[in-house]
Amino acid sequence: MSSNRDIDALIELMAKLPGLGPRSARRAVLHLIAKRELQLIPLADLMQRVAASARECLNCGNIGTTDICDICASEKRANGQLCVVEDVADLWAMERGRAFKGRYHVLGGTLSALDQIGPEQLRIPQLVNRVEAEGISEIVLALNATVDGQTTAHYIADQLEGRVTLTSLAQGVPIGGELDYLDDGTISAALNARKTL
Amino acid sequence: MSSNRDIDALIELMAKLPGLGPRSARRAVLHLIAKRELQLIPLADLMQRVAASARECLNCGNIGTTDICDICASEKRANGQLCVVEDVADLWAMERGRAFKGRYHVLGGTLSALDQIGPEQLRIPQLVNRVEAEGISEIVLALNATVDGQTTAHYIADQLEGRVTLTSLAQGVPIGGELDYLDDGTISAALNARKTL
Repeated sequence: MSSNRDIDALIELMAKLPGLGPRSARRAVLHLIAKRELQLIPLADLMQRVAASARECLNCGNIGTTDICDICASEKRANGQLCVVEDVADLWAMERGRAFKGRYHVLGGTLSALDQIGPEQLRIPQLVNRVEAEGISEIVLALNATVDGQTTAHYIADQLEGRVTLTSLAQGVPIGGELDYLDDGTISAALNARKTL
Repeated sequence: MSSNRDIDALIELMAKLPGLGPRSARRAVLHLIAKRELQLIPLADLMQRVAASARECLNCGNIGTTDICDICASEKRANGQLCVVEDVADLWAMERGRAFKGRYHVLGGTLSALDQIGPEQLRIPQLVNRVEAEGISEIVLALNATVDGQTTAHYIADQLEGRVTLTSLAQGVPIGGELDYLDDGTISAALNARKTL
């Protein structure tokens, strides 16, 4: 493409990132070369640092740079609440919401008969252990509203019934959402869960 | 976002790439951490290598890792043809076409009264010099079919009239194109330039 080996190899690797293709990878690489000091060199340095230090938290599965992540290490977060999420991206999304003050547990996926993913492939046994070990009183199931997500939620609820309070995220109209653009399922869920003003 | 400083900084830098935003940058970084050996480390290495070696060709403005790019250095490409393009991405696009056997000249933009870009801000004086110095017989103006691109083509044509054959890329129906999806201007250009079978 560029008739240069290193630059071509860089474009090829960039094109493998989710959300980028060959054309946007070429644009990104030209952009980086033009902003060498401000972006290319810092990016290379940070990637090297993250490659050397990033690891899964042994307790919850979050990604950080220590064996036990900052959230699990913080005593403030030990309030007896545990939020169960599918993956690290969902954990970060919950943290951006700034509403949840407890700790997390990352499953690493959802149960799926099709893909042969059973409870042992996920971190469900570890979850059951944590309930006892950390004296958890409430588990918030923040799983995606997909079939696999809800199957997984039901399975976890079965495993832990009677030992802990189980809750799930409310379903309803998103903040700023317009009724006309919502699907029928969301509207009926929001109506069924209507609140007295 | 991730409650980790290095990872957050990496996401922030990735989000500045063209074609990526905060959400896709987070996905890309999680993907890279999951594929540390295969993608993250090679990417960091290549970025460092490209940051150290990438430079503009002193002759044509192409980006490579030597002072004179591979195309300018190749005697085979000295066939008296010079293809003038707006930027390096366009040069790479021409090379992917594999049809042009001569050398290139990258202007680095187009003339623009609005943005106060005159001939001196582009590499137009260098282009005029190269015509003499390299014994150029034909200049192919491969500039974008935008107003600024065409203004620049006319300016260059004025500068070099009588000293060299000036050609421009043909306009017409793209290969695989369907008439119904083409704009009116392209259809009328293709009709005016119709060929006898």
